[in-house]
Amino acid sequence: MHRLYHFPLSPFSRKARLVLAEKKIEVELIEERFWEERSEFRRLNPAGKVPVLKVDDFILSESNAICEYLEEKHPNPPLLPRTPEERAEVRRLVSWFDDKFYRDVTVNLLGERMMKRITGVGYPESTNVKEGARQIKMHLDYMSWLLDRRRWLGGNMLSLADFSAAAQLSCLDYISDVDWNRAPLVKDWYATIKSRPAFRSLLSDQLSGFPQPPHYANLDF
Amino acid sequence: MHRLYHFPLSPFSRKARLVLAEKKIEVELIEERFWEERSEFRRLNPAGKVPVLKVDDFILSESNAICEYLEEKHPNPPLLPRTPEERAEVRRLVSWFDDKFYRDVTVNLLGERMMKRITGVGYPESTNVKEGARQIKMHLDYMSWLLDRRRWLGGNMLSLADFSAAAQLSCLDYISDVDWNRAPLVKDWYATIKSRPAFRSLLSDQLSGFPQPPHYANLDF
Repeated sequence: MHRLYHFPLSPFSRKARLVLAEKKIEVELIEERFWEERSEFRRLNPAGKVPVLKVDDFILSESNAICEYLEEKHPNPPLLPRTPEERAEVRRLVSWFDDKFYRDVTVNLLGERMMKRITGVGYPESTNVKEGARQIKMHLDYMSWLLDRRRWLGGNMLSLADFSAAAQLSCLDYISDVDWNRAPLVKDWYATIKSRPAFRSLLSDQLSGFPQPPHYANLDF
Repeated sequence: MHRLYHFPLSPFSRKARLVLAEKKIEVELIEERFWEERSEFRRLNPAGKVPVLKVDDFILSESNAICEYLEEKHPNPPLLPRTPEERAEVRRLVSWFDDKFYRDVTVNLLGERMMKRITGVGYPESTNVKEGARQIKMHLDYMSWLLDRRRWLGGNMLSLADFSAAAQLSCLDYISDVDWNRAPLVKDWYATIKSRPAFRSLLSDQLSGFPQPPHYANLDF
């Protein structure tokens, strides 16, 4: 039995959910307000972060460890290519989105505009929001550059790189912070990935007090 | 031919150097002042960070992708255990040190006290330094807790988790920011790992203008 402690607007939780769904692994979702630092949750993950995956009595945390584990235990469909070189390129991009995109963009936009309100730690810092708005352009341009050369972000197959990127972008799309018109190739890529069955659970996420914008779950946005 | 673009006080460069050395892969080290944003280096890694590994004409970046690649191409000696569960625990700790330890401690201590001076972006922020000094205690305690239960940080074998941790701590040790007396188990673990041949290149690092403290390269510190 798989149980995932997650938060709907955590991009790392979303990445784990996408990988679980793509591999058709049934999972029970438990929403965890991780910032409340429940002592029971701290025992599951001393880092205090979501996602945490419980597989029977075995506990995993850190989205990278979770996704690599799922890939090893459930190799079909594969989300990492075959050669070490191709795998390195996918993993480079996983780090790019999990680390660079997350800190350049997601923290500055979603963190300031949503998570501060949800967790009650103050008001958005406008310089950070501006920085995030500036950075997302650079990132969309880089993604366009990649998608101009490749079928998927990490190469010729759908991979963890695509799910890492889609996890970040889908959170930002919930607050309408993605200017899809800037990057038609990225929009096409996102439309393709959004229409996969694995994406359905994300599109039905509702955050109380923060309704979905109309385009969010629309496959023809 | 392996070539590594690195910076001596970059913990992620150090992790890659340790893994290369442990696997006895000869490498040419190129010191890269990554913050100067050399355009040639930007072409190697658009994220602008070290380490970058060049293997013949193939270019890799992001320390996680580099280490996983080296593990796949040069499986001996193994630095990841065999079962998916054990591997997940090692990867959880790699993320713990690369992400949490790095941001809680290394950025606040090494970043403020050294990197700001080296890169010429201002003076240490004392609140950050204090926060780093507070956080390192928590981290040493957590490492002690792990080492009280296991032979190595990630389990029964030396793994990427140990090298991730040692890479961070060795940078902090260069500026004498580790209170080894607080955590005898961590000190013993570090003495063991420091005496490995793979560590030698790190212990001979010299930063112009910032001499090594006497205990840094001493195996009996």
